[in-house]
Amino acid sequence: MKSYRKELWFNLPTRRGFVNITPQVEACLQESRIQEGLILVSAMHITASVFINDDESGLHQDYERWLEQLAPHEPTSMYLHNQTGEDNADAHLKRQIMGREVVVAVTAGKLDFGPWEQIFYGEFDGKRKKRVLVKIIGE
Amino acid sequence: MKSYRKELWFNLPTRRGFVNITPQVEACLQESRIQEGLILVSAMHITASVFINDDESGLHQDYERWLEQLAPHEPTSMYLHNQTGEDNADAHLKRQIMGREVVVAVTAGKLDFGPWEQIFYGEFDGKRKKRVLVKIIGE
Amino acid sequence: MKSYRKELWFNLPTRRGFVNITPQVEACLQESRIQEGLILVSAMHITASVFINDDESGLHQDYERWLEQLAPHEPTSMYLHNQTGEDNADAHLKRQIMGREVVVAVTAGKLDFGPWEQIFYGEFDGKRKKRVLVKIIGE
Repeated sequence: MKSYRKELWFNLPTRRGFVNITPQVEACLQESRIQEGLILVSAMHITASVFINDDESGLHQDYERWLEQLAPHEPTSMYLHNQTGEDNADAHLKRQIMGREVVVAVTAGKLDFGPWEQIFYGEFDGKRKKRVLVKIIGE
Repeated sequence: MKSYRKELWFNLPTRRGFVNITPQVEACLQESRIQEGLILVSAMHITASVFINDDESGLHQDYERWLEQLAPHEPTSMYLHNQTGEDNADAHLKRQIMGREVVVAVTAGKLDFGPWEQIFYGEFDGKRKKRVLVKIIGE
Repeated sequence: MKSYRKELWFNLPTRRGFVNITPQVEACLQESRIQEGLILVSAMHITASVFINDDESGLHQDYERWLEQLAPHEPTSMYLHNQTGEDNADAHLKRQIMGREVVVAVTAGKLDFGPWEQIFYGEFDGKRKKRVLVKIIGE
């Protein structure tokens, strides 16, 4: 069994945003030389997500509006977590909706994807350096 | 390390529905002859889910009603994604709640499940052919 | 390839609650002697979750309040599932928001975590014995 590990770093200029990280994950897979196995791509921060969906800007704006309805940022005082001095409680909630991680099959050295699957980094508390972990195991 | 891959195809006659795919996944596992490892079962389409829960029709109707409250199909015009000519923005949101994939342990050649765990395909934009990927790695 | 399996048992005195199970999962990893691979930690019951987030009691109270808003326990009669004699339909919904499982990278014999990641058991229908599965594969 082979294994491979890499960290991807992000620093979004905005509080929230979505970044298509499929090319970086594909580059990791190529570097690993693993042909058959599983890739784990996970947010190393608990106010961010890694998820798979469509690379369509209208949809991303729909996600942004929807997540704000389900777990609004303001008023920040409505969250007990924010009494610790943080203002990011909503980000911890949004990340549970969108998920921490994805596991993707590796087949014949490629991400084994359906027609529209793309991997995104979902930032809910940005303006600082944060990381995503790529771990691949297989042969 | 052994690996195994199979696609399961679905064509639901309705826009939304839940299908218990546990027997098909068990058949894949048997065919793979893998005794110890992990199975990934993932939707290859971004308007569908694979999830684990109870095979109880009342609960499935509760999920349907609940998901419609959280991410209504109509009015379709409220979603920017639908300006692309689609009417399935709600399906992309519902799938994030229910999840894209499950990872299940394989122990002694069986799905290592608790008493009521069953694997479902969750369709949110049906009436067309769509796929689920089963990938197994192990020994 | 090596594999390792263990069940962790819980019996929460309350209907709902969150338990930090990171130390138990770390003990499993040490016992497995696996250095590189993947850990699956999954709820074996369909009214419970395993998720990764922050060990901060204010945040846990925020989750509790938020999940009650999204999927209220009462009135129990609003759920069809509860016509089977259960009163836990809300728990099946809450668990979909919080997730069934996490997959964590194992690197150099450790859980490969960001600065604040901790693994939690999320109980939504407690006061009885329930289980979490830890499965590790790797070398």
